[in-house]
Amino acid sequence: MIRTINLKDKIKELSKPWSPIEISQVNDQVVRLALYDGEYPWHKHTDGDELFYVYRGSIVIRVRGHPNITLYEGEIAVMPKGVEHSPKSIEPSFVLMFEPQALKSHGDY
Amino acid sequence: MIRTINLKDKIKELSKPWSPIEISQVNDQVVRLALYDGEYPWHKHTDGDELFYVYRGSIVIRVRGHPNITLYEGEIAVMPKGVEHSPKSIEPSFVLMFEPQALKSHGDY
Repeated sequence: MIRTINLKDKIKELSKPWSPIEISQVNDQVVRLALYDGEYPWHKHTDGDELFYVYRGSIVIRVRGHPNITLYEGEIAVMPKGVEHSPKSIEPSFVLMFEPQALKSHGDY
Repeated sequence: MIRTINLKDKIKELSKPWSPIEISQVNDQVVRLALYDGEYPWHKHTDGDELFYVYRGSIVIRVRGHPNITLYEGEIAVMPKGVEHSPKSIEPSFVLMFEPQALKSHGDY
């Protein structure tokens, strides 16, 4: 049985900010969905890139040594591995993340 | 420079059905966007799973030996590697696919 995942339903399960739930796996990658509300501390991932897709809302990702990235609904950006970043929400937002299963974070949180 | 990808803009580049464009890479995976319009032949991918995300529209994926999968806007399904399938559109639709960079297809097309 191949299951389908409905994002409109899934976001109802999310009430706590910055607490991603795993919604799918594809190869050695994992798809996570999180509520972004407020600010998340500076950190970096040493094991791989992380793709952000804004399903609902709008966010800013501050990036060490680069201009801020602003992402609106339906927009995607990829954070290269090892680059320190800190996301914050412009409004409460739901964000999909694609990243390696074993992604490790290092930072201030 | 980390670029942002806007799906609403990207779909304007797609006029030919079943001709995915690569919109991003993340680790050894690639993100492709395609216009689904009509039927695509039965095939399977031997190198990895393929994730489908319906950005706009609705599609049916027929799956050998399994019930059909119907995906509406904002819905996701993962086709396990080696499983023969044939997508068709219910209406002209824009679909994101996450899959290994080197995904090989085998089938009737």
